[in-house]
Amino acid sequence: MVITALDVGGTSIKAAVLDGDLKTLATSREPTAKGADGHAVADQVARMVAELGHDPAAVGVVVPGIVDENAGIARFSANLDWRDVPLRALLAERLGIPVALGHDVRAGGLAEFRVGAGRGCTEAAFVAVGTGIAAALLVDGRLYSGGGLAGELGHVDVGNQLKCGCGAVGCMEMIASASAVARRYTELTGEPADGAESVVLAAQNGDERAKVVVDETVDGLARGLRILATLLAPEVVVLGGGLFTTGEYLLDAVRGQLRLTFQREPELRLAELGPDASRYGAGLLALDLLKP
Amino acid sequence: MVITALDVGGTSIKAAVLDGDLKTLATSREPTAKGADGHAVADQVARMVAELGHDPAAVGVVVPGIVDENAGIARFSANLDWRDVPLRALLAERLGIPVALGHDVRAGGLAEFRVGAGRGCTEAAFVAVGTGIAAALLVDGRLYSGGGLAGELGHVDVGNQLKCGCGAVGCMEMIASASAVARRYTELTGEPADGAESVVLAAQNGDERAKVVVDETVDGLARGLRILATLLAPEVVVLGGGLFTTGEYLLDAVRGQLRLTFQREPELRLAELGPDASRYGAGLLALDLLKP
Repeated sequence: MVITALDVGGTSIKAAVLDGDLKTLATSREPTAKGADGHAVADQVARMVAELGHDPAAVGVVVPGIVDENAGIARFSANLDWRDVPLRALLAERLGIPVALGHDVRAGGLAEFRVGAGRGCTEAAFVAVGTGIAAALLVDGRLYSGGGLAGELGHVDVGNQLKCGCGAVGCMEMIASASAVARRYTELTGEPADGAESVVLAAQNGDERAKVVVDETVDGLARGLRILATLLAPEVVVLGGGLFTTGEYLLDAVRGQLRLTFQREPELRLAELGPDASRYGAGLLALDLLKP
Repeated sequence: MVITALDVGGTSIKAAVLDGDLKTLATSREPTAKGADGHAVADQVARMVAELGHDPAAVGVVVPGIVDENAGIARFSANLDWRDVPLRALLAERLGIPVALGHDVRAGGLAEFRVGAGRGCTEAAFVAVGTGIAAALLVDGRLYSGGGLAGELGHVDVGNQLKCGCGAVGCMEMIASASAVARRYTELTGEPADGAESVVLAAQNGDERAKVVVDETVDGLARGLRILATLLAPEVVVLGGGLFTTGEYLLDAVRGQLRLTFQREPELRLAELGPDASRYGAGLLALDLLKP
């Protein structure tokens, strides 16, 4: 028995046929079709599933933005330019097999919690630090979605004075996301940054200007994680996304700044599944549909 | 069938015999016996249960501090001066009937969620604003305890410069608790405050100095609730504790300052059960033990 898992992003759709152990049998990737009503993406997903073959028993699809998994509705995505798309129903009528709709970061968290760095935890968080920052929350062993709106860690106020695209001031992702690292480096040096990872590596190698930026980032990450620990007391926080592909250096720095007083100290771990976490999560959602 | 419910505080123990509909059949109240190992409190609770009579089928006891409900252990309480007291076992051996151990604020939340202002919610928070600030979190219809350490909303950093007893700077309860209101009023005016409620009422009646204090408080409350809404997206937040006995005036002010951008806007409601919420919650915990 196999399923097909798709990670629909603003730029591309990554698809894979996976077996029950998440072993990859086939993959494909295409630029994402645009269209505000979601029909273009639904058509494309259905075609990609057919072209990948293997006769899947179910399909799991994850998308960014605000997703109500229970209702099967993609509520909002700035990148995909859609609102209130009943994507699960659109896909089910095209595919004729069970379809699970999920959220990219929560699905990534599901995969990390089940088969990645958070295996065996019942109280944990997965924090994806990329263009933005979002968290998947594992509460008493179950993912908590809050109608699709929980886990917006990137928009907690960590005390900076920067205006965020969401309209608020002080959002964590304005200072601690991968895009913030690159932007702050350019602001400080007048030079373009070759991605946030290069800034972190430069800091690690002693570049003073890069260190200024990374120190700010670490402070912002620590402030956000402190709030997470205070409110939710996770045993483990799995850190992933582009910024944490740089490895233990950044993680160690964050550990050093966490400065909890009475709170449960979460164990900070690097994500294990990399950029495929969301697609594995989509696969797990599809497999869960097939459980008796 | 009746149960006995006890709310053990640092100052007094409030006990009640309740029937299955939480109707009060008898009450008593005593100063709390002290003792770091918990045996004095356990003896006192057992005696109070016996003296109240009515032959209860189970007992529910709630205590402040850090409580691991699953393990039945009172981990820490500054007011009761104890650490790692296996209170459920101490009580069970004295009482010989089923005993539930809970946390005062989470039990208060349980009562508000089941029979008070949060009836019918599945995603909600109960925020008790008294000497300190703590939250009970309802997640997918179930209370989340985080090993007894979740919900410490009073210790999220809301950007003030005040040093908290916990060792951190900026904690919400340093600016937005009932004790902070009284303290700030005295600092500002050089006059003792007759409780936080009187400061709120004075502000409501146009006292400019009281308004300065209450404006700070409202700002701190709004900042904390904004973080709660961003991370957990509750549909309803029930506000209780001493500070919110003053009614809708303060609640309206907090609503006006909440300023969410994309987050799910929680409905803010006043608690309905007042200072008895924790004892009702203790009763519900005991009744839950008797369910088949």
